[in-house]
Amino acid sequence: MKVTAAQLAALLGGTIEGDPNATVSRPMRIEDAVEGDFAFFDNPKYEHYAYTTRASILLVGADFVPTQPIKTTLLRVPDVRKSLALLLEQFADANTRPAKAEISAQSAIHPEATIGQGTSVGAFAVLEAGVVIGDNCVIAPQVFLGKNVKIGNNTVLHPGVKVFYDCQIGSDCIIHANAVIGADGFGNAPMPDGSWQKIPQVGDVLIGNDVEIGANTCIDRAGMGSTIIHNGVKLDNLIHIAHGVEVGEHTAMAAQVGIAGSAKIGPNCQLGGQAGIAGHITLAKGTRLQAQSGVGSTIKVENQAFFGSPAIPYGDYVRAYIVFKELPDLAKRLRVVEKAIKN
Amino acid sequence: MKVTAAQLAALLGGTIEGDPNATVSRPMRIEDAVEGDFAFFDNPKYEHYAYTTRASILLVGADFVPTQPIKTTLLRVPDVRKSLALLLEQFADANTRPAKAEISAQSAIHPEATIGQGTSVGAFAVLEAGVVIGDNCVIAPQVFLGKNVKIGNNTVLHPGVKVFYDCQIGSDCIIHANAVIGADGFGNAPMPDGSWQKIPQVGDVLIGNDVEIGANTCIDRAGMGSTIIHNGVKLDNLIHIAHGVEVGEHTAMAAQVGIAGSAKIGPNCQLGGQAGIAGHITLAKGTRLQAQSGVGSTIKVENQAFFGSPAIPYGDYVRAYIVFKELPDLAKRLRVVEKAIKN
Amino acid sequence: MKVTAAQLAALLGGTIEGDPNATVSRPMRIEDAVEGDFAFFDNPKYEHYAYTTRASILLVGADFVPTQPIKTTLLRVPDVRKSLALLLEQFADANTRPAKAEISAQSAIHPEATIGQGTSVGAFAVLEAGVVIGDNCVIAPQVFLGKNVKIGNNTVLHPGVKVFYDCQIGSDCIIHANAVIGADGFGNAPMPDGSWQKIPQVGDVLIGNDVEIGANTCIDRAGMGSTIIHNGVKLDNLIHIAHGVEVGEHTAMAAQVGIAGSAKIGPNCQLGGQAGIAGHITLAKGTRLQAQSGVGSTIKVENQAFFGSPAIPYGDYVRAYIVFKELPDLAKRLRVVEKAIKN
Repeated sequence: MKVTAAQLAALLGGTIEGDPNATVSRPMRIEDAVEGDFAFFDNPKYEHYAYTTRASILLVGADFVPTQPIKTTLLRVPDVRKSLALLLEQFADANTRPAKAEISAQSAIHPEATIGQGTSVGAFAVLEAGVVIGDNCVIAPQVFLGKNVKIGNNTVLHPGVKVFYDCQIGSDCIIHANAVIGADGFGNAPMPDGSWQKIPQVGDVLIGNDVEIGANTCIDRAGMGSTIIHNGVKLDNLIHIAHGVEVGEHTAMAAQVGIAGSAKIGPNCQLGGQAGIAGHITLAKGTRLQAQSGVGSTIKVENQAFFGSPAIPYGDYVRAYIVFKELPDLAKRLRVVEKAIKN
Repeated sequence: MKVTAAQLAALLGGTIEGDPNATVSRPMRIEDAVEGDFAFFDNPKYEHYAYTTRASILLVGADFVPTQPIKTTLLRVPDVRKSLALLLEQFADANTRPAKAEISAQSAIHPEATIGQGTSVGAFAVLEAGVVIGDNCVIAPQVFLGKNVKIGNNTVLHPGVKVFYDCQIGSDCIIHANAVIGADGFGNAPMPDGSWQKIPQVGDVLIGNDVEIGANTCIDRAGMGSTIIHNGVKLDNLIHIAHGVEVGEHTAMAAQVGIAGSAKIGPNCQLGGQAGIAGHITLAKGTRLQAQSGVGSTIKVENQAFFGSPAIPYGDYVRAYIVFKELPDLAKRLRVVEKAIKN
Repeated sequence: MKVTAAQLAALLGGTIEGDPNATVSRPMRIEDAVEGDFAFFDNPKYEHYAYTTRASILLVGADFVPTQPIKTTLLRVPDVRKSLALLLEQFADANTRPAKAEISAQSAIHPEATIGQGTSVGAFAVLEAGVVIGDNCVIAPQVFLGKNVKIGNNTVLHPGVKVFYDCQIGSDCIIHANAVIGADGFGNAPMPDGSWQKIPQVGDVLIGNDVEIGANTCIDRAGMGSTIIHNGVKLDNLIHIAHGVEVGEHTAMAAQVGIAGSAKIGPNCQLGGQAGIAGHITLAKGTRLQAQSGVGSTIKVENQAFFGSPAIPYGDYVRAYIVFKELPDLAKRLRVVEKAIKN
């Protein structure tokens, strides 16, 4: 994506001071920018960079009054943050959305699949019978959508995503590469001879609107009924969500978290990386969990922070761990005391 | 999959009380079912649901005597559990197996690959030279099978699975989406200058019969010789099995477990989620490991449970952790004692 | 790959004692080898195996003087280790590199993509506009390369790898199956109503030379600027590298490690499996981290080992954990002491 200062000014309703033909292809922090980058400045603390930046174009507020000579082309806009957000989104879209929607001739789409207006389907994607996709979606190359998968509007499925039969994904969702939605839950009944008998997993996965799911993350279908991911949930990479789990609105999980079967995670929770939640328990609304912690029983009180494996209240863990580190000394002191008493 | 009560009755050898044209498309728990679902009832504890369920069809035992009016269509069968198991399996199969076996014209199959009777190969699958697949397998879309990969009968490889050269998979296995079998083990020799020299990984992976492997799980090929997964092993999602590992019959691992190189996991073990096993150690038959635990040395006694990182016997860890939580108080009490003695 | 003793002798400059037509298809350890395998022997400790091995061909040093009858065909070479390394590499290459470079007619390559000499592109691979690939690379089947992705020479991308727009990969790299390079970082700004607003992730990923990346590993693109993986880094499977992270030269990470955003990992570090690193911290050169450990704050001293979550110096953790295991006894002894003082 190469754009000139003139084009940016037109897009953002800004005015140029400098070269209207200055050309940029990448957003960058003001202190790191080089020629060909555009940067922004709206925090007075960073004003000195405005005079030294090597960015080819610098977004500044309409009221910025330089106190030193400016070497770059200035683009003055009414609201730097808003203009920047717009630019970054357009930059990302230009690189991930096809320039115009099209259905690749190299895809494999069942005649009974339905595809909305403005939706793209990439090369080597597979859409099975009964798939229904809304408008303005991007089904990237190498995606697999099983029978009767339903997808809302404006949702992006990145390359290699697999979604299995009957699962539903809402609108404005982003699912990153190689994520797997609706694989069988891990359900096995122990047999008397020590072997396991597979319990058929015939439920589904329901994903709300505005949900983002990280690369290589797995969300299993329920044994029966639904695994539910509510609106606004944000999941990082390599997360495991087992069968029958429910994740409440706006809950965010960092990478490599694992949630065991039928656990119910409340809304507005924040789970640190590599944390684990046991099966069949509930986490209250707003629960915060430190990275690598493990929760083995239900948390009923809302908005509390936990730490450790098994997790205990955050402050308790921190205080206990301080003593843990001194345990050899503690043990020695106890021996001294015992000796003193003995004598 | 839409079926009528009449069709189900014919399939299961049952009798209908109600509407033979009642149509269902989904199995559901009796308490959660809605119109269009079929449910089942065989536990007297749930009898009250039989009178209130909104399921369109309810499977019940031949000898069920209602004590209140029934609103749904009853399908009486001799053995509810057996009928249900059959139905669920058929439901899952109907959604994941092609209606009739076929080799997609959009696949890439080497002329020297051999494919058994009743086996399907999906769109955009790649089969390299020397691949041999048995009968009634499903090679889903976007699967990759490297040179000389051998697969038994009735095995299902879901979309995106990659299996590398010389690896073997038995019969009746299920490998879920995007799992990777036979990538290089992580073998690097340290050089004097601090760099690493790759040790070629030229072994293979041997997977027995009746093995299930979760989505995005990785099983690396041995450096030399074989990584071995014995019959009946069940692996959940996002598990790492390193090069040269051996996993005994009927061992089950929950999601995100990691097994380091050349470890030998006995049969009938159960490893909780996110547990880790160090390289070159052995776990005795029937070892049970609590979630997030880490085992650093060989476990010789069979059928014991462990917890913690490093893991110790389960009960010992639980008892130690109870005191751990009170460590600040313990430290305070020790200070009091020391003071008392000093005076 | 089937080769005769005569062919191996020609390749390695060796001499044959035995059957020049002995044929082998697999390397194997001397003690495990069976007919059709080739094995090697250069450690005097294993000499007894030289007389009992079932390998069809045995590589030995030019100066080996048997003291018992030899049953296998000997291939004498000047340097056993060097010959073995060469053979193993050729064996691996023969199974993963196409016999001759070709661009699959079943791929989807944008006309504005550039592909070097001797580079293969497999079936169902997608190369978007502006992709530039050097010489002698292998782009395996089902790989996705987004806009303007740049790749050096002799780099292998295994099946299912996805690399997103603007990311760069150096020369002599190996990226294993289904790894994801350059997916969006996990960046979300909290809104007053508890929801999250996505922060566009418009940076890239820069990967140096001689880097190996494991199967299903994820390396996210920076929010702005670059996520950087320096030369010679070795990453195992299922690792998460967040946005804006920098990993120093020759650092190695075992499977399932997670690195949070903007952390800076020094060169020559070794991180054990399932270890986790918090965001925005630095690990000094040569830091070693025990498996499952978690680092929450910057480590400034070089070449130290750490353990625990939160991690403390290795020896300190080991000593503290010894006392931890005895905590119930410690607590009991403290109660005895308290009682003694009370009386």
